[in-house]
Amino acid sequence: MTTLTGPVPPGLLNELSRSRSGELLHHELSARWPETADSLDAIARYAMVPAGKFLRPVMALTVAEAVGGNPEDVVPAALAMEYLHVATLTHDDIIDGDTVRRGRPTVHVAYGMSEAIVTGDYLIFSAFAAITASRASGSRAVAESIAVLAEAGSDLCRGQILEAELVDDLTAGVGKYLEMARLKTGALFRAVCHIGALLGGAEETQAAALAGYGEDLGVAFQIRDDLIVFADPAGTVDKPTTSDLVNGRPTLPVLMAYEAADVARRQALSSALARRSANAPEFEEFRRALIDTGAVARCHETAGAYGQRAIQGLAGLEPSGSVDVLTEIVRWAVTTEP
Amino acid sequence: MTTLTGPVPPGLLNELSRSRSGELLHHELSARWPETADSLDAIARYAMVPAGKFLRPVMALTVAEAVGGNPEDVVPAALAMEYLHVATLTHDDIIDGDTVRRGRPTVHVAYGMSEAIVTGDYLIFSAFAAITASRASGSRAVAESIAVLAEAGSDLCRGQILEAELVDDLTAGVGKYLEMARLKTGALFRAVCHIGALLGGAEETQAAALAGYGEDLGVAFQIRDDLIVFADPAGTVDKPTTSDLVNGRPTLPVLMAYEAADVARRQALSSALARRSANAPEFEEFRRALIDTGAVARCHETAGAYGQRAIQGLAGLEPSGSVDVLTEIVRWAVTTEP
Repeated sequence: MTTLTGPVPPGLLNELSRSRSGELLHHELSARWPETADSLDAIARYAMVPAGKFLRPVMALTVAEAVGGNPEDVVPAALAMEYLHVATLTHDDIIDGDTVRRGRPTVHVAYGMSEAIVTGDYLIFSAFAAITASRASGSRAVAESIAVLAEAGSDLCRGQILEAELVDDLTAGVGKYLEMARLKTGALFRAVCHIGALLGGAEETQAAALAGYGEDLGVAFQIRDDLIVFADPAGTVDKPTTSDLVNGRPTLPVLMAYEAADVARRQALSSALARRSANAPEFEEFRRALIDTGAVARCHETAGAYGQRAIQGLAGLEPSGSVDVLTEIVRWAVTTEP
Repeated sequence: MTTLTGPVPPGLLNELSRSRSGELLHHELSARWPETADSLDAIARYAMVPAGKFLRPVMALTVAEAVGGNPEDVVPAALAMEYLHVATLTHDDIIDGDTVRRGRPTVHVAYGMSEAIVTGDYLIFSAFAAITASRASGSRAVAESIAVLAEAGSDLCRGQILEAELVDDLTAGVGKYLEMARLKTGALFRAVCHIGALLGGAEETQAAALAGYGEDLGVAFQIRDDLIVFADPAGTVDKPTTSDLVNGRPTLPVLMAYEAADVARRQALSSALARRSANAPEFEEFRRALIDTGAVARCHETAGAYGQRAIQGLAGLEPSGSVDVLTEIVRWAVTTEP
């Protein structure tokens, strides 16, 4: 079995975004949302371009290639994954009151709340429209892909509600957290891989295995996102280290620490979460507590277990460069290297 | 050619909601969103049940029957039209700050703004999922229906942005208004009829003609909605008579009056719209001005022209009870009878 202990290529995600698949996607994205776009399309372009890491669409193409399909046929559907992702970010930013994303004002700050709600809706519709543009794969694969995307979208919504229920609740438990991660992050990666496989021409069993790969990978990603703020307090990470704490979100290491803690430490964890702010010494104390109780280590183990299960989803594929990339993405997900 | 001057059956829309098609739909709606629903499904149920006039899903079944299809196969897809409609209402109510709908608190008032945004998204995903459940019609018809629904959804979003641009703008002109009505109201009726036809087994030409019927009917509906507040100030209508005025929305009669008015009357219309309120005498004065300039009459003529065009979209169908119903709906749309 492939192990997860091998080295991760440095800058893997940036490499992928610059690969041939990445280039195909960037080209199609610019064609779909040109600079000349006006009105609603201009707002959608603002939300979409410049693209982020582009991980979801690149993975859809990589999966299509791994099952023997022609990635070029899958480009519109692959971009649909990014549309849906950005749609949820646009609505999430309203819900969370976030004002900055990727160094720019969020859509509702730049254009207004009403416009941001409508733009998120528009991107959802655009995602479904883009799937139907992948006609080369046949109507049946398209209809199945639509069902997969609709289910993933519904799961994302359920995950959003579950995440809100978890705020300030340290007693929620690891199980509820993992269900939230499966819905909120796993579901879209599941759809990315399932749809990449269906439109790439995979048989049902293979497509289902790849869907499982995507879901497990997505949960590992979510855990990685929780862990990265504890990994290297001096390093640069994508989000402010105190973001989850300030929002009262009990992430996996916090829930694991709480489960294992005595009364005094539970009290300390509750206070840290209820404070809704953290200066540098407070955050360092919080970080040390999670490391000292072994919660961070146990979290790494959990991510590793999801990673191992993800790898198993690739077992039925012929060895290829695409399969190597899918394996490397799992390796990346279970470390906190940049 | 069928004329539009015949009598409209009294309470037509209520009759349709209680017809066999209506019963099928109500049954399926209760099964899909049962009383036992919890969390996100409970909010979605609150938004959906009890259903309104149910016009869109009933029309989808009626069209499927009119082209020789089995309405029972189309029930999930017909309900998808209602999901999408309610999704847009849920988001619109946030945008407009409306607190009451059908006599109950709107979703964002009852559950919170974040929950209302997520519920609207969830209903959009549920709509696409429901279309894929109409597999009896074959994958090709399903894939085409998805493309039609996605396009209609995108048009709704464009209509929403265009409507916002029209606020307070009396110089926008009738053309821009009619484009807004086509996008905001025509698009969903177009999809209702197009999808009903596709899933009912219609050929492409017939489906396109029925799509045209739906779009023209939708525009007539929007004009009817604008006119009804001027028809019978003492009568009971669904919305407050001053709603458009208070929101600074120049409806079709207002734009028509403005186009034909001299400087003094233009000034009066601008003031009425800018005031953002209207007591009974002010509204009566406004109403009289629109009637006296002939704007209300011209508006009726425009609705009638759309109605005539809608009727032409039915020309290729075999005479049947379903076609009679589709014709009666047009008659209803071009009058302001209750």
